[in-house]
Order: sequence, then structure tokens, then C-alpha cells
Amino acid sequence: MVELRRLLMAPERLAQAGDQPLQLEPQERHYLERVLRLRIGSAFAVADGCGRLYEATLLDQGLVQLKLSSRQSEPASPQLVLLLGLTRKDVDITLRMATELGVDQIVPMQAERSQPSPGGQRRERWSAQLREASEQCERLWIPQLMSLRSSNEALSQPPIKRGSRWIGVTRQHGAPLLQEVLKQTPLDSSRWEIACGPEGGWSPRELEIASLNSWQPVSLGPTVLRASTAAVAALSLLQHYRARRTQKL
Amino acid sequence: MVELRRLLMAPERLAQAGDQPLQLEPQERHYLERVLRLRIGSAFAVADGCGRLYEATLLDQGLVQLKLSSRQSEPASPQLVLLLGLTRKDVDITLRMATELGVDQIVPMQAERSQPSPGGQRRERWSAQLREASEQCERLWIPQLMSLRSSNEALSQPPIKRGSRWIGVTRQHGAPLLQEVLKQTPLDSSRWEIACGPEGGWSPRELEIASLNSWQPVSLGPTVLRASTAAVAALSLLQHYRARRTQKL
Repeated sequence: MVELRRLLMAPERLAQAGDQPLQLEPQERHYLERVLRLRIGSAFAVADGCGRLYEATLLDQGLVQLKLSSRQSEPASPQLVLLLGLTRKDVDITLRMATELGVDQIVPMQAERSQPSPGGQRRERWSAQLREASEQCERLWIPQLMSLRSSNEALSQPPIKRGSRWIGVTRQHGAPLLQEVLKQTPLDSSRWEIACGPEGGWSPRELEIASLNSWQPVSLGPTVLRASTAAVAALSLLQHYRARRTQKL
Repeated sequence: MVELRRLLMAPERLAQAGDQPLQLEPQERHYLERVLRLRIGSAFAVADGCGRLYEATLLDQGLVQLKLSSRQSEPASPQLVLLLGLTRKDVDITLRMATELGVDQIVPMQAERSQPSPGGQRRERWSAQLREASEQCERLWIPQLMSLRSSNEALSQPPIKRGSRWIGVTRQHGAPLLQEVLKQTPLDSSRWEIACGPEGGWSPRELEIASLNSWQPVSLGPTVLRASTAAVAALSLLQHYRARRTQKL
């Protein structure tokens, strides 16, 4: 079964069009007509990133006719949140893989051992990556990108009711495997949070703040994972547990 | 606890030195003295990639005194094998993450939908990546890199006794989650093989060959994963299952 190529469009824009043909942005038109080489009358799909999927037909003059193809899908539950200590490299690929692996919210953190923030255009670039990866992996809800904050601020948020939170640690004797603790996690959790550190790992102060705020230390395996690999490995496990749970409900 | 920096050296070279100081190669000396800025008398660690770890002391004139620090460790069991359909991009990062995630053997495959082989220096570069990642993640056995072969040849190898083999598929209705089938996998397996396809997925012929040779189709989650993400997600799960098993034995 070949799926139609997808384009993400903001829900407000789709609502505004209603039943009328919608005008494509120049870069969308370029993508459909030049990159994908769709012809007038060709079908593709449009997602709104908030659970709705549309059947789309390319009309002439860069117009599109849309038809809602199903009811709004529910967001996955529990919500999967990644607190990501910024690393010097590989943030882009981590965000891309995290999106494919079903992350629902990303909190970029300036950790104590993160490289100093370069500032600039990162947020825009990160948002674009989340959008692109969402289109490609065909998820209906796109991940929410939170604003950059310090690790101390992010880790000291109080835990929510029916939430679980874990912090990936290395060389900490006795930390259980994430998979072990997942088996004991209540089935009715509404939010799973996983914090992954930067290259140099967590500072003692960060670990103390985490401990005071119900972050449970977990191991992600017997080897020392790089920061990017740790985040991806953790999300692989969490999304698999979530998918199993969904299949069983 | 801060671990000592590690260097990999071939076991034959270490055996040849015996109890005598060993001469560093120029690039090793550069790495220790210039990059890590170790001084004469500094300690570091040497692994042979076959389960042995040595305490090393830097002497002058690029010599090193070695002392075996423990018995040879056993290789992890079951052996974890990745059959990797070559992709246009991201092979490097996939190999690096796979090494961190405990893969024992990698079979690079020219799949039917792989981009045409560029040939050249790839094998050397891949080997270097496996070595570097092994040093960094502190594993004692480095992954074995098999020679490039066609997917049809690789997938048609007969299954071994007490081995399990899975092939990651997309959009194949009814394929169980890898995590589900792992629960039913015999505890005494000696080899777990996972085949991950290139960007365009498997061809019908590849799937047929796989089916004739005991490759069980598995899903890696509810979204469409890119080839690199699929390999990493699968290995994350497999290594976690293996680590749990090892802890329980």
C-alpha cells in the first residue's frame, strides 16, 4: 500500500478555508509541483498537526481542494515528554528521530555542562525539523517545542498527578534499567517524562534537584551512551511500551 | 566515578609486547599527548576489543607499560546482528549508535532499493567508526564488520539453531511489535538477527526470500520510521531485553 505524500498546514488556515479551495504558499506549491511533480488533479494528503487528516486535490493556479477524511484522532496517551540537555552536535538528528519515535513535547535545556548557547535561529530550525519529520513519518499530532530553559528550572517543575518521570544516568550504581521500571509504571499514567543530559552528563546539583522533584534515575543500558543515542534509545522503549498499551486497551 | 580514557589496540599487538613496554603508533601518541594532554606517568586504559582490559601507563618516548586488569570478559549473549540495507545518508550515525547499543555483528547490504553502491573507502571508514564508538562507549568487544553483500544473498542465509531473526516492515498489516515477539523468544537463544531496509523499504522479492528463510516480519512502532531510526530503535529494544536477561541469569 503506497501512502499519499503529506503536507502539514496550520489548523487555523484550514478552518479559514472551510469548503473553499485554499491557496498554497509559494514554497508549498514549489514542493508539490516541482519536487513531487504532482499534476493538476493529483491527490495528496494534508495533516493539521492536531489530529486531522484531509484528502487534497491539486487544482490549477496553486489552489487546493480539501476534504476532511476522518474524525480528529485522539492524541496518544500517555504524553511523551523529552527534556533534552543541549549538546554541541547531533541535536538536529535527535529531534528528527524523537519525532519519528512519537515524542509529544520537547523541552530544550541549557544544562550546566551544555556548551554555551549559540543563540540565533535555532528555534526556527528546530520547528522546521519537527514539521518535516512529522510529515515524513505520518504522525497526526506534531510535537510541541517548548522554549529553551535552564536545566535547573526545567528539572525543578513539580511533578503532575499520574505522571512518571525518569532521568537517564551513567555510571550510577544500582540505577534500574528503564525497561524494568516501565513494567511497574501505572497503566493510567497521563504523562511520561524522560530527561537526557548533555555530553558531559549531569552535574551533582542537577541530580540533586532532580531527586528532590521525583525524577527517578534510570540506566539506558550497559554501555556509556552518547547524549543523542541515550535520548533515542529511551524514546524507542517508551513508544514501544505506549504502543503495546494502546493495542491492549 | 570518572573512568579512564580508553584506547583500542589489536590483541596480536598486545600479545607480542608481553610484559615489555609497547611502542605507540604516531597517531596514538598524538592522541594521548596532544589531544588528551596526558603526561609521562599518566594512567589510561587499553582494550583489545576481544574482552580484555589493561591498565596502561604512559612512559617517555611514546612507550606504554601495560598490565592486564581483569580476566577476559565473556561476549554478551545472545549475539546481536544487524543486517543494514544501505541508505544514501546516515549510515555513519547508524553504525555509531548501533555500536553504542551493543550490536555484535553488522552485515552491510546492498538492498534492491539501496542507492547504487559508491564503492571506495567505505569499509575503512566504517571500521574506524566502529572502533571509535567502541572506545567511547567503553564496550570490551568491538562489533564485527562483515563484507558488503546483496540483500538477496544476506537474507537467504539459512537460520541457525537457537537463533531468532526478524525483519522490520512498514505498512504490513498485522505484523506484531518487536517487543511483543521478544517476550516469546526462547531464553537460550544464541543469536538475534534484525534486518532493516533502505529508505525505499524492501522489494516484494526481498520479503519473499526473507519469508522463505525464517525472517519474522515485525513492526517497530505506529509511525513510519526512517531507515536509520528503525535500526536504532530495534537495537535499543534488543539490547534492553538482553541486558535484563543478563541481570536475571
